[in-house]
Amino acid sequence: MPQLRKDSIVDRWVIVASERGRRQAAFADPVNQQTDPASCPFCKPDIVGAYGHTPLLLTNGQVRVFQSGTPFFMATEPYTCQKHGLYEACSSWGSHEVVLETPDHVANMADLPLDDIGKIFSTYAQRMLVHRKDPLIRYVLAYKNYGVAAGSRPIGHARSQIMAIPVNPVRVKDKIYGAKRYYDFHERCLFCDLIHQERKDGQRVVLENGEFLALTPFASRFPFEICIIPKRHCCDFAQGIAGYEGQLAQMIRELLMRFKCGLNDPAYNYVIQSAPFEGGGGYKEYPTIEEDYHWHIELMPRLMRVAGFERGTGFYINPIPPEMTAEFLREVRL
Amino acid sequence: MPQLRKDSIVDRWVIVASERGRRQAAFADPVNQQTDPASCPFCKPDIVGAYGHTPLLLTNGQVRVFQSGTPFFMATEPYTCQKHGLYEACSSWGSHEVVLETPDHVANMADLPLDDIGKIFSTYAQRMLVHRKDPLIRYVLAYKNYGVAAGSRPIGHARSQIMAIPVNPVRVKDKIYGAKRYYDFHERCLFCDLIHQERKDGQRVVLENGEFLALTPFASRFPFEICIIPKRHCCDFAQGIAGYEGQLAQMIRELLMRFKCGLNDPAYNYVIQSAPFEGGGGYKEYPTIEEDYHWHIELMPRLMRVAGFERGTGFYINPIPPEMTAEFLREVRL
Repeated sequence: MPQLRKDSIVDRWVIVASERGRRQAAFADPVNQQTDPASCPFCKPDIVGAYGHTPLLLTNGQVRVFQSGTPFFMATEPYTCQKHGLYEACSSWGSHEVVLETPDHVANMADLPLDDIGKIFSTYAQRMLVHRKDPLIRYVLAYKNYGVAAGSRPIGHARSQIMAIPVNPVRVKDKIYGAKRYYDFHERCLFCDLIHQERKDGQRVVLENGEFLALTPFASRFPFEICIIPKRHCCDFAQGIAGYEGQLAQMIRELLMRFKCGLNDPAYNYVIQSAPFEGGGGYKEYPTIEEDYHWHIELMPRLMRVAGFERGTGFYINPIPPEMTAEFLREVRL
Repeated sequence: MPQLRKDSIVDRWVIVASERGRRQAAFADPVNQQTDPASCPFCKPDIVGAYGHTPLLLTNGQVRVFQSGTPFFMATEPYTCQKHGLYEACSSWGSHEVVLETPDHVANMADLPLDDIGKIFSTYAQRMLVHRKDPLIRYVLAYKNYGVAAGSRPIGHARSQIMAIPVNPVRVKDKIYGAKRYYDFHERCLFCDLIHQERKDGQRVVLENGEFLALTPFASRFPFEICIIPKRHCCDFAQGIAGYEGQLAQMIRELLMRFKCGLNDPAYNYVIQSAPFEGGGGYKEYPTIEEDYHWHIELMPRLMRVAGFERGTGFYINPIPPEMTAEFLREVRL
């Protein structure tokens, strides 16, 4: 019999099926991102010229950050908001950047050296620290789409994206409010308590190292969904990661290798979930957020299509229990 | 320059690009659902036997409702909720039903006769009225997935689904609270005001008939997303549709024909958005919902993949402004 599970952070119910492999047929094909380096715009020697003459913003080891050639956010006009009766529209002030993770034509972050992966995360942190000086910026999204099913284009060259935006995304707010409700009642951090319970229980733990825990959330929306949580309490990615990039790189690379070997190189996404900040520094909008919130990463292979009613209702059907996917991932032979 | 738009009902920002056809290459292939009637389980003469011996629940003209052969919800065990530390899991009490829309091997609702389409909607209403007598049921979802990209299986025989569930989905709640906030301030229904503004403006109106308005929402998350709103104020689909099934059928069929002819037979979903009810009748949980809320239908062709950060943040990027998609759909030649 399927089970209805409530997410412990946000107000969301998920149906979790109990039979292994239910709807397995709906799972996607492998990514197969092997494209020709000769036609890859990211492989050209003059990368700036080849990538639409967009400015180079930062170099960090092998990692380079460019402004996107087709940016959704730019800081080139005055920030304006207009009311049209019931509606409000604002100019898309901010920054939209491409993080080129390697000069080589390697598609999957799983195949990069550990040092280079660590540099990708320190690059996100550096860009976040730059953007939060802008008083109009409310949030910085750092994320990766790998494979067409994950929303990427078929260019087999590892990269991720950063968006600095003037508003707080709704699911970021939902998590913050959920964590705050818990803290207000218990006077303890929800994520710290969750780490404690999951380590004791063990069923949903995929990997653990000195600093990080990777688990399949109790109310996972998608099969093989993973949450990577730092064991050290900190609301902010840029602060929390400093000095621990290597341990995060080691964990992410191992998880991605387990996806690649165990799930046939699936498309995947990750999103860094960090606290928002009041532009210009500090957390004026959320005064207790340093205690309430705990940064983490959502990592999701794209194995199934999301049906329409899930979009319309926020009610998800997950065909495989997270206890089974955690066990499967732990047992993948690398 | 792209524009940031705020949804007028829920707390959600959407980036709307301003250039026509941006990222057009990411659009999906047509559905191509032509499958062999000989191997279609829904075409067999003894439909009950062929569909896994699941009980026939209702017959309404050509439309028949069966219990799903692999139900996610069933009312066959006592309803229980269990706490596991931070977590809560409940048994999936309820009902999961397949609405077989026609005895013929026709894939797309657009190709059914008007009368049969009307009967599909009156069937949803009849099942809703049955389920709300169950004191454990909080919501009834009626929705359709057409095409593999929409989460359906490649069986070319028109059908939709009904789920009666013991909880309220989070996005349903978000809409209710958004509408209530507006009503509390203005003492008017948000949706009624929206109909007024949209009819006056005209840019986003796709179709209108005596009872219904079809528009592309100002902060559309997806290209060609459509909202169908009844002009007559009513919070509840089952009550509101009574007597107007024909007008809704006429509007939906015309919209689906415009999708089929103008967008190359895309996959699509629709979800009926009706007020929740207190199981056993009435709206005890939401005492003012009859004034606050206004039922409607979300209709979404599946032309693009949702990128991972949209899943993780609830922040959407829509590559085509809704004013352009409304104009395009108005001008499709049938």
